Amino acid sequence: MKRYKLTIEYDGTGFSGWQRQGQNVRSVQQTIEEAFTAFCQQTVSLTVAGRTDAGVHAQGQVAHVDFDYGPRPLTPHDLRKALNAYLRESGVVVLEAEEVDDTFNARFSALNKLYTYTILNRAAPPALTANRVWHVWQKLDMSAMQNAAKFLLGKHDFSSFRAVACQAKTPVRTLDRLDVIQQSNELICIHAEGRSFLHHQVRNMVGTLVEIGLGKRAPEDMQHILQACDRTQAGQTAPPQGLCLVRIDY
Amino acid sequence: MKRYKLTIEYDGTGFSGWQRQGQNVRSVQQTIEEAFTAFCQQTVSLTVAGRTDAGVHAQGQVAHVDFDYGPRPLTPHDLRKALNAYLRESGVVVLEAEEVDDTFNARFSALNKLYTYTILNRAAPPALTANRVWHVWQKLDMSAMQNAAKFLLGKHDFSSFRAVACQAKTPVRTLDRLDVIQQSNELICIHAEGRSFLHHQVRNMVGTLVEIGLGKRAPEDMQHILQACDRTQAGQTAPPQGLCLVRIDY
Repeated sequence: MKRYKLTIEYDGTGFSGWQRQGQNVRSVQQTIEEAFTAFCQQTVSLTVAGRTDAGVHAQGQVAHVDFDYGPRPLTPHDLRKALNAYLRESGVVVLEAEEVDDTFNARFSALNKLYTYTILNRAAPPALTANRVWHVWQKLDMSAMQNAAKFLLGKHDFSSFRAVACQAKTPVRTLDRLDVIQQSNELICIHAEGRSFLHHQVRNMVGTLVEIGLGKRAPEDMQHILQACDRTQAGQTAPPQGLCLVRIDY
Repeated sequence: MKRYKLTIEYDGTGFSGWQRQGQNVRSVQQTIEEAFTAFCQQTVSLTVAGRTDAGVHAQGQVAHVDFDYGPRPLTPHDLRKALNAYLRESGVVVLEAEEVDDTFNARFSALNKLYTYTILNRAAPPALTANRVWHVWQKLDMSAMQNAAKFLLGKHDFSSFRAVACQAKTPVRTLDRLDVIQQSNELICIHAEGRSFLHHQVRNMVGTLVEIGLGKRAPEDMQHILQACDRTQAGQTAPPQGLCLVRIDY
């Protein structure tokens, strides 16, 4: 058996999310596992760095997989090409395949993750970026959002930003970066970085930042929301299509 | 009758191009004209700045339209909102509507057009940008492409880069800008600017630049290709999905 690290890009639009679920739903995991089976007639199981929800995209998701191609040698380069041939038109592509030793674990070896959330802040809805952004037509106050974001940096109990369904053992996480950036005239990008995140944490932080950007709450309210450790205190969950898992560092 | 200038964004993926054609094909023009009819029960006819081919996108296409909303006043803002309501999920959106006087003509008043062509230059095919880029997996030589591009600047007979179907009266055009830019690690953008372009001119210039970037021809060959005034001398027509009409100046 050999272990391979796969770096994966996908358009989350047509998927039920990363994780394999029941029948009649199309997950990213299942799509890649089926490409493996089609290619080498083996059933494999992928271990992923961070599950993503339905509609969430990835530029640099990472998973590992153990499998044995049999007597013929298979370079990581060949593996990538073979998988991509079977993934054609699927919305999923393997950017890189690397052979790693069996101490590598896509989930537990991850040191840092970068998510980017993109908001289209203009009057007209998107045509070209329809499934890639959250459209907010009211003008957002950038400096209010930037000031509010600072309260979330560091090690905290993030219960106020945690989905009810979250299965993590502890709500304590360390947020190393939360930058709100005016990317262009119409685009606002929010970059969130840390070792790990709670379920919906980024989308709940973004939803709350947008309420502050709209003037519905003051930037300082972010501190009280965080300290309350109560999901009902924070804002709405931002829609999935604005979120992208950009990079995972090991 | 009042004349309105419309600035339009569209995802060209599902369209047969800008121009209204026969039945059973879906054009951008027809889609917007039908939104007008649904909104105000009038048949209108749009005049466009520059037709785009099937699969080509626009961030800033411009068209004008004459129509009379009757006795009730209609602000440009209301017109935009009404059209976008009928264009929902169509892949077309009206970014801006402005009332203009009847000397304005979207086609003949245009002073300058900017097209951007995007190439994804990496081994793996695109997932997130599948309908937005031309995927070229072999490494492109940027400086060769940049040097070749310079030969095309200025006023020339562009017959070598003109589609057979082109209906322009003269093949002479003035190209004011042709910049080949490394946008990011994987993305190359080619910006072409001028008052007007021949049919397929940008895509034929890009196809030829890519052959030079691949080392199939030398940068200096571009000059001979231009001087030949012969379409068979230039390279292939780059695929439509990499092209976007970014902006039109009046």
